Amino acid sequence: MGNGVSIKAGIVGGAGYTGGELLRLLTNHPNVEIAFVHSKSQAGKPVYEVHKDLLGDTELYFKDTLQEDVDVLFLCVGHGEAKKFVEAEKLPVSIRIIDLSQDYRWNESIREATVEASGRTFVYGLPELQREEIKQAQNIANPGCFATAIQLALLPLAEQNQLQQEIHISGITGSTGAGQSLSATSHYSWRDGNISNYKVLQHQHLNEIRRTLAGMQQDDLAEINFVPYRGPFTRGILCTSYLNSTLSIEEAEQMYKSYFRSHPFVTIADSIPDLKQVTNTNKCLLYLEKHDDKLVITSLIDNLLKGASGQAVQNMNLMFGLEETAGLKLKASAF
Amino acid sequence: MGNGVSIKAGIVGGAGYTGGELLRLLTNHPNVEIAFVHSKSQAGKPVYEVHKDLLGDTELYFKDTLQEDVDVLFLCVGHGEAKKFVEAEKLPVSIRIIDLSQDYRWNESIREATVEASGRTFVYGLPELQREEIKQAQNIANPGCFATAIQLALLPLAEQNQLQQEIHISGITGSTGAGQSLSATSHYSWRDGNISNYKVLQHQHLNEIRRTLAGMQQDDLAEINFVPYRGPFTRGILCTSYLNSTLSIEEAEQMYKSYFRSHPFVTIADSIPDLKQVTNTNKCLLYLEKHDDKLVITSLIDNLLKGASGQAVQNMNLMFGLEETAGLKLKASAF
Amino acid sequence: MGNGVSIKAGIVGGAGYTGGELLRLLTNHPNVEIAFVHSKSQAGKPVYEVHKDLLGDTELYFKDTLQEDVDVLFLCVGHGEAKKFVEAEKLPVSIRIIDLSQDYRWNESIREATVEASGRTFVYGLPELQREEIKQAQNIANPGCFATAIQLALLPLAEQNQLQQEIHISGITGSTGAGQSLSATSHYSWRDGNISNYKVLQHQHLNEIRRTLAGMQQDDLAEINFVPYRGPFTRGILCTSYLNSTLSIEEAEQMYKSYFRSHPFVTIADSIPDLKQVTNTNKCLLYLEKHDDKLVITSLIDNLLKGASGQAVQNMNLMFGLEETAGLKLKASAF
Amino acid sequence: MGNGVSIKAGIVGGAGYTGGELLRLLTNHPNVEIAFVHSKSQAGKPVYEVHKDLLGDTELYFKDTLQEDVDVLFLCVGHGEAKKFVEAEKLPVSIRIIDLSQDYRWNESIREATVEASGRTFVYGLPELQREEIKQAQNIANPGCFATAIQLALLPLAEQNQLQQEIHISGITGSTGAGQSLSATSHYSWRDGNISNYKVLQHQHLNEIRRTLAGMQQDDLAEINFVPYRGPFTRGILCTSYLNSTLSIEEAEQMYKSYFRSHPFVTIADSIPDLKQVTNTNKCLLYLEKHDDKLVITSLIDNLLKGASGQAVQNMNLMFGLEETAGLKLKASAF
Repeated sequence: MGNGVSIKAGIVGGAGYTGGELLRLLTNHPNVEIAFVHSKSQAGKPVYEVHKDLLGDTELYFKDTLQEDVDVLFLCVGHGEAKKFVEAEKLPVSIRIIDLSQDYRWNESIREATVEASGRTFVYGLPELQREEIKQAQNIANPGCFATAIQLALLPLAEQNQLQQEIHISGITGSTGAGQSLSATSHYSWRDGNISNYKVLQHQHLNEIRRTLAGMQQDDLAEINFVPYRGPFTRGILCTSYLNSTLSIEEAEQMYKSYFRSHPFVTIADSIPDLKQVTNTNKCLLYLEKHDDKLVITSLIDNLLKGASGQAVQNMNLMFGLEETAGLKLKASAF
Repeated sequence: MGNGVSIKAGIVGGAGYTGGELLRLLTNHPNVEIAFVHSKSQAGKPVYEVHKDLLGDTELYFKDTLQEDVDVLFLCVGHGEAKKFVEAEKLPVSIRIIDLSQDYRWNESIREATVEASGRTFVYGLPELQREEIKQAQNIANPGCFATAIQLALLPLAEQNQLQQEIHISGITGSTGAGQSLSATSHYSWRDGNISNYKVLQHQHLNEIRRTLAGMQQDDLAEINFVPYRGPFTRGILCTSYLNSTLSIEEAEQMYKSYFRSHPFVTIADSIPDLKQVTNTNKCLLYLEKHDDKLVITSLIDNLLKGASGQAVQNMNLMFGLEETAGLKLKASAF
Repeated sequence: MGNGVSIKAGIVGGAGYTGGELLRLLTNHPNVEIAFVHSKSQAGKPVYEVHKDLLGDTELYFKDTLQEDVDVLFLCVGHGEAKKFVEAEKLPVSIRIIDLSQDYRWNESIREATVEASGRTFVYGLPELQREEIKQAQNIANPGCFATAIQLALLPLAEQNQLQQEIHISGITGSTGAGQSLSATSHYSWRDGNISNYKVLQHQHLNEIRRTLAGMQQDDLAEINFVPYRGPFTRGILCTSYLNSTLSIEEAEQMYKSYFRSHPFVTIADSIPDLKQVTNTNKCLLYLEKHDDKLVITSLIDNLLKGASGQAVQNMNLMFGLEETAGLKLKASAF
Repeated sequence: MGNGVSIKAGIVGGAGYTGGELLRLLTNHPNVEIAFVHSKSQAGKPVYEVHKDLLGDTELYFKDTLQEDVDVLFLCVGHGEAKKFVEAEKLPVSIRIIDLSQDYRWNESIREATVEASGRTFVYGLPELQREEIKQAQNIANPGCFATAIQLALLPLAEQNQLQQEIHISGITGSTGAGQSLSATSHYSWRDGNISNYKVLQHQHLNEIRRTLAGMQQDDLAEINFVPYRGPFTRGILCTSYLNSTLSIEEAEQMYKSYFRSHPFVTIADSIPDLKQVTNTNKCLLYLEKHDDKLVITSLIDNLLKGASGQAVQNMNLMFGLEETAGLKLKASAF
């Protein structure tokens, strides 16, 4: 085992998409032992009956009881359910919590990327924003998928007070972003070969994005417009952001490379990237262009990894003093 | 209007996939007036709210009452529901019925492709099997999708008593074959990029296939093995059938061309075909190969058209003395 | 034959995607006889060897010679090739030309949607912009696919001098938009499950879009920003456009409905549309939203139909005094 | 580093699909150092310019020269090219070769799964067939993708002399099986939503399959019929094999479980599997059914991993005394 650290982890809501992806990661993580996987709906079944690709990889069963002999608890339940769970269970505060829902991501009254609630302090878990705070954190609010892709595209500009002009963003997400619930727009016959927009200019992730960027930027944050699309693919998010900027392309690239220098999962591409460069990895690719007055930033992540469960593991690694990339050097699917 | 014939049609179960496809066809059919569209679940809604591509094409609303002033009634309800409907409603026998379910397709006790039930006589509606009987029919049992693709592949052999050796078939169907119900295997995140077999050697369409072929063939029918697959596409069926045969490829091609000469929707291809040659059309393509002792027949149809609603319209055309292709000269989607 | 008009049509460049789609349309058009299909690369082959879905539908062969006994010539050759062809062949001006390339779409020096070149006058063929001019035209420059989707989204605003504020557009196109040439980004293994942007803020269709809108609008046209994406599907374009506007949603809807009232292929949707509502049809759907100060317009077309060959036939219909929708009442593929 | 072993590896033909997949694996393999990546076509370029997902993961460049200071050489060149390379380069026999082409897979004159050619002895590299021979091998002929899926489905039966009756197989492969060459059938616009069969009853992998099975089975091998399909997905192979058998389902399952007990990558599923259970892993899933007299075996692999580069690494692990699974515990993409 890596550097001798062994972490006992529990997963709550292990039967959903982010729970499954977390299981795929933790099963192979060199420093983690999965103590239990909690699921109300699937209790009693082998994990591989729900996450069928894990057949042969794990003998775990879903349980409907919690164990308190764990170091960290991942909450993979739905929005609203995480807060209810934390407040009902009153777990010892010594158990660290990494919540993948939006329940502790932001708070209207504050600009700081930390939320006090339910008797705990939740640090917003975007390592490229505040790695040191995460290392010290007891609890993590893991960012949303679109929120991750968009913040990573804009963080260096916010830090340099460069978000002065209205920002325009379009982004496309794969079907796993909507979870495993059955619905008309998750039906294969509908979604294959199809495209649609939704929540135009009204996506819920704008809250956490604005909070982060406003908290970093000295002057008032410019308006952010976001057009999200549903695409006919399963994994990944690609966003294109642009704004008027006086920065030259060289200045911008320098600013981005400098900002992300120490961050192992972010790379500035030197040619137009495509989504499958990041699919099935914890990477974020960024690409910069300048056309007339407009600075354009393309950002790409895998929504289930850097946009959810991969980032949760990255946060765990930081909280427990492990290598940030432990268990996250994933083979891209590439095709 | 075409040759002056005007048919008043009603649709029962108009909110499902075959009902929608029938509406797409009948809306443009030169000799049909849609009198009503019945749907229990969607009654009161405009048709275009359910079949959204019909926005701008029809002002019809779903109704939960029937009208008896129609010439023909299409039953697009689920298996089992059609028979219940016919027996409960006791419609005048002057109203012709075209049933797209499997309820009247076959009967264990008989070899003829006609079923007496519910006070009516249902002719099995495969025009390439028995066009003259269909022209005289009062009621039609419209064939299943896989059953259509497989029967068209084997009819000329059965007619010539050539199905003497065990027959091996594999076939792949698109997602619309499973209808619009939501299920784990209809979820986009599951089905995209995926493949699986199901009901191996046990598909329910084998009943109607065996009945037809046994009815045509002089000697006993050989065993038929069928491996069906679910494929990651929405429309279409491709089947590959093979058996030991003493026919040369030239004899076989001659036999097939002769059999289908007068049938406008079946073409014998002269190079390996692909599914999108038939997608969104009422066509069936057949392709023959001979390798050593094996005769191989590839057959392709669109499951919603030649495999369901298109064939239903073809049957209607024949029953009412119209050109067989009326309303069915459809532009292939091709891509 | 419909109203007794019979048009003899020739197709140049018939082996490509738009040529094939035109053949699919004209083969079923009630008033058209296809006189010849020209293709340098495929001369001598049956048409169905290249456009395989046409097997059984046409006995035509590709030719490498032109016939002058035609009423209209469709040019489906590449950008740059159309102008070369027109200037080299010196066809009688009595033969009408409908050019699907961009060669005669715009001219930097003029604001009018008409280009004088190569000894002919080309009218920009967007019927919803200038139907009367098209009816009188001898030659048509058929619009680009993205250009069609974007102009239809903005025409009513331009006419009312409402394009006063910077316009922001993102749009996604299917693979057929890039034609049939083989390239890394047309490889299935690359494109499936993938997404990428390209020509960000620099798409070539902006020229014709700006010319049209500037020509309609009384005041100077605001800046137009356009982010195009390649999506993992074959057919269709969806665009989302927004700008600051003082119009209420009711005023905007009224303006759009009034503008398009007499145009049979454009419908204002009353709920969020999806691409497959227009796939395989000549329709354009528009959907309007207002969020705070922003007016949002979603527009959808099939790039090969309303964005290319379907619009070419629509223009032909107008030029020859036919019903505008003749041969264009297409069954949607829907799935 | 794992158990202290460090292997220097070279890759010839590193710019293709199997070369790229090998690079993805070896970059993360705990016991391998990639000494060089050879490519004639891409020499001088960074590896990440061709395999773009490797951006940030490797600083290697493609070279057009070979180094002899390596322990093992992977040949990822085309069929026919591998043999030419081996015979032209006359590398020291101390350098082990793992050839992913078909050049050394079989030889008509022999039943043993070993080929003597080009001055070397090539052991057929199917670990579930002959792990001990592979451990001792100097050179490996890595099996074909369909050949792997089909042999794993039939090995236990051959070993028990149970392949007495004609065998019927259908199988579907993703697009990466055809490599990265551009062709009509690799064009996205063609392949998306499409299906076709090819080389029906004539696939080239039948040679190596028959050789292996005939070599294991005591009695003469029964005839093998194989219908391959191209499917609209990128990765993976699913095969369904059946034959008449007197084995009960319990006997068959027992036979398979016993055969594969010690093989870490093969699992006998207890419910119908789907392709994405193995996508992006080195696993093979098998599933058994019995219907009347027919025993049915479904087998699934990822064609680029267990069907090519993953199996090559598995062979390398065995040859160098490493854990068989080293570097091959891959996170499934699952979606």
